[in-house]
Amino acid sequence: MSRNLDILIRELRVITQLRSVAAVLSWDQETYMPPGSARARADQISLIMSMSHARFISTDFRRSLGTLIDLPTGKVSEDNLAPEEVRLLEMTWRDWRRATALPVEFVGELTRLTAEAQHVWEQARRRNDFGLLAPYLEKIISMKRDEADYLGYDEVPYDALLDGYEPGLTTGQLQTLFNALRPALVDLMARIKDQAVPDRRKVLTQDYNETDQWEFGMGLLRDMGYDLTRGRQDRSAHPFTTNFHPSDVRITTRLRHDDLAIGLFGTLHEGGHALYEQALDENYFGTPLCEPVSLGIHESQSRLWENYVGRGRPFWKCYYPRLQERFPGQLKNVSLEDFYAAINTVAPSTIRTESDEVTYNLHIMLRFELEQALINDSVAVGDLPALWNEGLEKYLGIRPENDAEGVLQDIHWSMGAIGYFPTYGLGNRYGLQFYEAAKDQIPRLEDKIAGGDLGTLREYLRENIHRVGRAKTANELVRELTGGPLSAKPFINYLAQKYGELYSI
Amino acid sequence: MSRNLDILIRELRVITQLRSVAAVLSWDQETYMPPGSARARADQISLIMSMSHARFISTDFRRSLGTLIDLPTGKVSEDNLAPEEVRLLEMTWRDWRRATALPVEFVGELTRLTAEAQHVWEQARRRNDFGLLAPYLEKIISMKRDEADYLGYDEVPYDALLDGYEPGLTTGQLQTLFNALRPALVDLMARIKDQAVPDRRKVLTQDYNETDQWEFGMGLLRDMGYDLTRGRQDRSAHPFTTNFHPSDVRITTRLRHDDLAIGLFGTLHEGGHALYEQALDENYFGTPLCEPVSLGIHESQSRLWENYVGRGRPFWKCYYPRLQERFPGQLKNVSLEDFYAAINTVAPSTIRTESDEVTYNLHIMLRFELEQALINDSVAVGDLPALWNEGLEKYLGIRPENDAEGVLQDIHWSMGAIGYFPTYGLGNRYGLQFYEAAKDQIPRLEDKIAGGDLGTLREYLRENIHRVGRAKTANELVRELTGGPLSAKPFINYLAQKYGELYSI
Repeated sequence: MSRNLDILIRELRVITQLRSVAAVLSWDQETYMPPGSARARADQISLIMSMSHARFISTDFRRSLGTLIDLPTGKVSEDNLAPEEVRLLEMTWRDWRRATALPVEFVGELTRLTAEAQHVWEQARRRNDFGLLAPYLEKIISMKRDEADYLGYDEVPYDALLDGYEPGLTTGQLQTLFNALRPALVDLMARIKDQAVPDRRKVLTQDYNETDQWEFGMGLLRDMGYDLTRGRQDRSAHPFTTNFHPSDVRITTRLRHDDLAIGLFGTLHEGGHALYEQALDENYFGTPLCEPVSLGIHESQSRLWENYVGRGRPFWKCYYPRLQERFPGQLKNVSLEDFYAAINTVAPSTIRTESDEVTYNLHIMLRFELEQALINDSVAVGDLPALWNEGLEKYLGIRPENDAEGVLQDIHWSMGAIGYFPTYGLGNRYGLQFYEAAKDQIPRLEDKIAGGDLGTLREYLRENIHRVGRAKTANELVRELTGGPLSAKPFINYLAQKYGELYSI
Repeated sequence: MSRNLDILIRELRVITQLRSVAAVLSWDQETYMPPGSARARADQISLIMSMSHARFISTDFRRSLGTLIDLPTGKVSEDNLAPEEVRLLEMTWRDWRRATALPVEFVGELTRLTAEAQHVWEQARRRNDFGLLAPYLEKIISMKRDEADYLGYDEVPYDALLDGYEPGLTTGQLQTLFNALRPALVDLMARIKDQAVPDRRKVLTQDYNETDQWEFGMGLLRDMGYDLTRGRQDRSAHPFTTNFHPSDVRITTRLRHDDLAIGLFGTLHEGGHALYEQALDENYFGTPLCEPVSLGIHESQSRLWENYVGRGRPFWKCYYPRLQERFPGQLKNVSLEDFYAAINTVAPSTIRTESDEVTYNLHIMLRFELEQALINDSVAVGDLPALWNEGLEKYLGIRPENDAEGVLQDIHWSMGAIGYFPTYGLGNRYGLQFYEAAKDQIPRLEDKIAGGDLGTLREYLRENIHRVGRAKTANELVRELTGGPLSAKPFINYLAQKYGELYSI
């Protein structure tokens, strides 16, 4: 390996190790940390993260990177590199350019502002008082506009923000996608509503012993191929996946005795994320080749297992008898078809995280539209609550009872995460296209799943997506695997067919 | 506060925070970390610890310290400081001088050597082959001699090593103490042996449900005043206490269904350590004023709760009925006196950690004598196994079956921890003297304990020992609280009285 590259990679490893250490501190905070220690822990995390950031934007790092790459243009100048080494450098430069484009004082100010705004958001939601948060949001939006200017963009400022979460994706692409999706979803929703069967979910909201739920979930994770010698599951208030190294990828779950679906699909979801992280190539640890492509691609892996596998008939052909065996009192007399209908109930909710496959994406679109308008200065922060409620009515035919359940429901904006929500929606698209590609390329895939073989699919994902790291972009990955670009059509067809049958429309 | 002092304290905080972060990583390693991640975790801990060390020995830190103190002599040069600030500086200088006295390459080499030696020790113990470890121990002993030379000492090289664990204590003091203690213990041991009752411990080795043990232990911790909003207990292979900040002090315990004493006294022991760490003054976090005085004083707090409270009659007057209630099948027909005799059984064991109040200290003395001789070059590493076995025979009248249960039983020497063992013995002395001082100063203390009031004792320890941090040395603390120096006499009297009665001698 080139000596200069070796030096750069060593430093990248240290920077990533520091992030890993901060991730351990955060994991502990969400799982086992005694409550009285919140302040000391916040100080520790902030210290480690700022050390990591300082090294990445240091003059030493700049000098090291400059020995291999032309810093203003990002063109690799070192000769005799393998193609994956060139990609490693290009991706490193990309991250470095974004990190160094923002003045240090600006980053400090934004960090302080959003830290405070998150506390204010909690209060505002508790008191149902958007007015408390509004001045903070105004400052945040204004600073995010500045951030877009610092980062630069080709078409609209929102592109620069989006690029931080979904590299290479543009506002234009998203608009095309959503414009195709929106009328189809709104129409499907309206037709389903006419056919709604009350109490369709009731079977899921009986009393389910949490220990049994836990054990069933652990069994699923093992069958999916989650390696428990290099990972573990714990409980936390909000489920998440975190990784400190490909050899230590942890997930958490939330169980509710009165709703089986929460734990079941949460486990499949986080398990999908975890399979991705565990399969990254640890020989490249610290570099972009051992990182997930994007948030959207990451979410595609969780959604694939949660929805396309986990809410499908083949999967439950195998697992429903086992679930009945685990919960005979609750499920003995419930048919597979009734269970399948229950886990695929469509019911508009004001809350994004409680939404189903059909309505979820409409929540994302509403946020995307509002975010764009805020960054373009075409709406004022003060108008958000009204616009939110109108949008929800238009898309889902429901209105939130109050702002706490409306515009204040998500923490993202107060964190300064503008451009993040679309990745949740993209995950559904990418995930479906990957799943359909797998079905095309693996003979009788769904028969295998119905027979309890989850390993064939997992290996396919591992080989074609997980092991790739950032050696390919999201666009390249989708085109190469599915033969076409990201598109609304497969998703529209999937929903029309699945829910057409489920709701006899 | 002096501006220079303020700057120094800020940097001390960062150095300590990094150590805290490494402690979180270690805690996780011992409790929840998946086994496959051992290597990545070792790298993380080593990175953070080396960052902390590098800051402490940096020229920036030297400069900052030099604005307040004369670096060659340690005399505080800044005027107008409060007495505790002067002490803070003196203790900081003391630590800094020890840290900077060793060349960086020397520290690196010793770290590598002992890391390797610990792996070799594990193998050597497993294979019962001291020869494997011997060459490593030879190098370690030779480097520890060099370390003593770098650090400097007044009388003998061993002083310099001892000082790292028990500041201010000398080899001479220890020899005086042990010379007084040794004949008394050997004599007592011999007389007890003649009176030994077989199966005296049998009541403790019935089958005890681990969940019930856990809950009983948690109840004890709560009663002792261990604050569970700022701490927690978990299980691990070897019990330990760790702290990341006074607001996050964690302990672990080990439970065995076939030996009630392991969990019971382990919990009291770690609980005693934890009360100390939780009560340190967090306003001084990062400085010596928020640190325990020494390992010996730390151990005094664990031993005080484990032995002087926890193996005493007053404590069990209150808690034995509760224990019987928890384990009626095992204890309903066992009298308090039989239980008291069981938990105070004296039986020589080849294993230090399984030893009782009488024999434990003889194990420590043997190690102290061998360590001294090694450092003084008066014995060769190759002779250790034979010397070990002879010493044990002389003191306890037993011989280990093999080296794995003899000279190879403890990890300390392979870690380079020479001078550490004496602190275990000191804890017993200090602990007793503190407990007797508390009895003198608190009217009817043991009646209170028998009535279930552990809080009065805890508050006494908190006020007089825990809150002090390193504002006093161990010698000062003992003299001020007990009116005299560290001494063998109280311990000899205590054992003679307690075990004279228990064994009718």
